[in-house]
Order: sequence, then C-alpha cells, then structure tokens
Amino acid sequence: MNIPSKILENAVEQIASLPGIGKKTALRLSLSLLKRSQNEINVFSKAIIELKSELKLCKHCYNLSDKEECAICANPSRNRQLICVVEDIRDVMAIESTGQFKGLYHVMGGIISPMDGIGPNDLKIKELIERLKNENIREIILALSTTMEGDTTAFYLSKKLAQFDIDLTTIARGVSIGDELEYIDEVTLGRSILHRLPYKNSFSNMQ
Amino acid sequence: MNIPSKILENAVEQIASLPGIGKKTALRLSLSLLKRSQNEINVFSKAIIELKSELKLCKHCYNLSDKEECAICANPSRNRQLICVVEDIRDVMAIESTGQFKGLYHVMGGIISPMDGIGPNDLKIKELIERLKNENIREIILALSTTMEGDTTAFYLSKKLAQFDIDLTTIARGVSIGDELEYIDEVTLGRSILHRLPYKNSFSNMQ
Repeated sequence: MNIPSKILENAVEQIASLPGIGKKTALRLSLSLLKRSQNEINVFSKAIIELKSELKLCKHCYNLSDKEECAICANPSRNRQLICVVEDIRDVMAIESTGQFKGLYHVMGGIISPMDGIGPNDLKIKELIERLKNENIREIILALSTTMEGDTTAFYLSKKLAQFDIDLTTIARGVSIGDELEYIDEVTLGRSILHRLPYKNSFSNMQ
Repeated sequence: MNIPSKILENAVEQIASLPGIGKKTALRLSLSLLKRSQNEINVFSKAIIELKSELKLCKHCYNLSDKEECAICANPSRNRQLICVVEDIRDVMAIESTGQFKGLYHVMGGIISPMDGIGPNDLKIKELIERLKNENIREIILALSTTMEGDTTAFYLSKKLAQFDIDLTTIARGVSIGDELEYIDEVTLGRSILHRLPYKNSFSNMQ
C-alpha cells in the first residue's frame, strides 16, 4: 500500500501493529480518527498513555488495578482461604460475571507457551508460592483454558504446588449448558461421562 | 462488560469508539498495548496526535498531505487540464496504483449521504467550482462509488458543473476483469452491454 503522506503512513503503521488489524483497516481507522476534533484525539491518546503509566498490578493477586490493592482483594467479605488461578484479567471478569465465586484470585499474566517464548519464569508462579507460604490458603482452583498451553501450565503448577497441604482442584470440564450431545467432540463427551456426578448435585451452586 | 479498573475501562471505551471495533476486541487490543514499553506507547500516541495536528489538506486538490501542496499537484509532469473527482485519499491511492491516470485530483472529503448527515456543503464542491473558474481545465472525470450515495453525488455535481464548457465523464462501469458472466448481477451486465465498445479499443490504455 503506497500512502502518499508520511504522517498518515506513520499512524497507519502504528495502528496496524495491533494484533488482528491489517493495513487497510488501520487506514480506515486513521481516517475515522482524522474526522474527530483535536480535543477528542487528545482524550484518545491520553487514555492509551495512562493505560501504561497509571495502571498497576494488585500487590496481592497481580490483577490489573487502579490502586495498589484491587477491589476484590480489598473486599473483606471474600473467602481468603480459596484462590482461583487464572491467566489474565479477562478470566477474572468472566468468572466474576458468573457470581459463583467468592474467593480471591491469582493472575499469572499468561500461560506457559514455548511457541510465544513464555516460560514459567515470565508468570507470577513464584509469587503464588510466596502466597501459599505466607497466607492461610486451603484450596487452589486452576481455572485455565483447555488448550495444550493451559494443560501444560496446570501440570507445571500441580508439580510446584505438591509440597503444600492444600486441595488442588480444577474447574469442571464437560458439556456446555445448552449444547446438543451429537455435536460435542468425543474427548469432551468422554470426560464428561468419566467425571459424571450424582444427579442431585448437578443443579446446586458452588459454596 | 464489567471492567474492574477505571483506567483500563477508559482505554477500552476509547478504542471501542473506533468504527468496527467492539468492546471485546478493544479489551484485547488494550491488553496487547499494555505489554509494550512506555516508550513504544508514547510513539504510538504521538503518531495519532500528529495525525490530527500535523496532517494538512493540499491547497489545490484537498488531498491529505504533509505539506501545503501534495506530491501529485507539485509534480510538473501531470496533465493539469484533466481532473479526477474522488471521495477520499483511499480512492486517490487506488487510482494511483493503476498507473493509468496522469492528471490531477480533486478530493471531496466524502459523498452526499443524508443518512450520515453529509450534505453538499460538507464537501469541497465550491472549491471545485473555483478551480474550474481559475484553472484551464478541459475534462472532469467523476470517479465515485456505484452506490446510491455515489450516484446522487455524481448527479448533483453534473448539475453544478453544467455551466462550464468542459467534458464531464465518469469511469466505465462493466464486468470486472477475471469475472465470469454467469455470476455478474443483471444491472452491471445490462449496462456493460448498453455501453459496449469496439473490440479493437478494449485493450488500449487511457491517454
């Protein structure tokens, strides 16, 4: 793409550096930004600069937070003996939106993925072990994606956490609510039969 | 979506204000920006601020340009008697990439679109009439989209330009190169039969 203006090309290149955005989309977005006022553009840029300069990681759970301590860790009504280990803030948001979890989180900031050059040392695993040493924790729930990377990370964590006297659990795998059996892949369906549970438990909420 | 951080929510809202980007994508982009260094973020923001503050409209053709006069208008080898009227810089880029046009452009900055609240006065139509009065122009090519809005704009322009002794032409509509006839819509096919041209002309380049 031959953009006749250096300034426009610069903006297009920066926007196209975002994941999943190509040059044509970046040009369309640049032209749409151009139609805004200088003030709106400043507000836009400020929000992005502050994202990096102002946003903190909660000192307990390493979730993204505006303050030193996130709202979940600061909430006295949460169960401090139960910790749910997740990949990033999106998983926290997803679990929070269910309203079913009343414990705390530990946000690792990623999962082990050799393809992307992310190893155990890039994640907040040492920090999780520190928490286990210093806090009175009864149960750790591993809530990771059911991908190769998620399973690898879960396996690594299970080895690292074996030294502690805690319950190590993982979120249930099975058939999604609303799914029709004939369309489920065989691994999921097989596991959901293997890990079947008493019918009377199947509607009860988590404590 | 319930984002637990005000700063992150701010950035997500700003990014989601771009056309075609929803909240989930905006969150993904924000988290990807967060992984960059402060310096990279500053470069990113600067490119967007400069887009608005530094980019100019060429004083002749109103194309986006780094200088007062764009590279095309400044090029002495272009045919100054031939002007191609287009909607925006993307159309200029598309036509330039064909290498078939050696005249100048007139960029209107949009097309008449009552649905989007864009009327004739929002476009550089007065400026086109000024150019026709002051410059020695022989032909105006209307290179607008074949949409309702494009046709409306072309019709409006044809009325406005009727007072001048120039050739008013429009780019050829017809079957795309490489298309199979059976898949062409009937309006395009009908027009391409109506506006058939001598076979010996069909391979010649525009002068």
